Amino acid sequence: MHDKVNIPATLAGLSEFWSQQTVAHANGQLFKVAKGIGSTRWHQHDDQDELFVIYQGQLTIQFQDRNVELGVGDIFVVPRGVQHCPKADVETQFLIVGLNITSNAAGGKPDPMQQP
Amino acid sequence: MHDKVNIPATLAGLSEFWSQQTVAHANGQLFKVAKGIGSTRWHQHDDQDELFVIYQGQLTIQFQDRNVELGVGDIFVVPRGVQHCPKADVETQFLIVGLNITSNAAGGKPDPMQQP
Repeated sequence: MHDKVNIPATLAGLSEFWSQQTVAHANGQLFKVAKGIGSTRWHQHDDQDELFVIYQGQLTIQFQDRNVELGVGDIFVVPRGVQHCPKADVETQFLIVGLNITSNAAGGKPDPMQQP
Repeated sequence: MHDKVNIPATLAGLSEFWSQQTVAHANGQLFKVAKGIGSTRWHQHDDQDELFVIYQGQLTIQFQDRNVELGVGDIFVVPRGVQHCPKADVETQFLIVGLNITSNAAGGKPDPMQQP
């Protein structure tokens, strides 16, 4: 059995943007925390849904036909196979949940040229 | 695609203790919110891990050989097949994650005689 982990404390200790740190796993899912500013590249995960819970800041999930604006306490699922691009105008901290197997890992980080 | 849901606002609107309300589903998992006071019965889920994230109050997960004390922001997994009994001395609000198929539903609520 794994020890409890405090999510806000773990988020406060993150040094790198868009890099995920695992805080729990259950039923074949990884529960990870990350912080972001700027945006990743446009990408999609064909094999899994991607769930976000916002802890600080504001995250815009850009889709091809609309944007979804997420604030603190919001939970939202990006369905598998849907092109998206998360964008944060201010430093934003969130919990992200997906399958143990990370798909398309490179696509969820910013283009190296665009990093702040 | 489902709309975003605000977790604290949904928790604030709950009227019944130990009754779960679904806020999201992803990859075969249900993400549910609930509030509790007092304790459920001792029970176990043989087919699934049960994950908690605390939003308000303090939740003690009693095991046969120890207690785990969870506070706000803590994430913790009760592994499948392990006997446990959650207990809250004050009103406690939490996110609970498990498989779409709820196992042993009755066991996760208090004995009717013990309800506050």
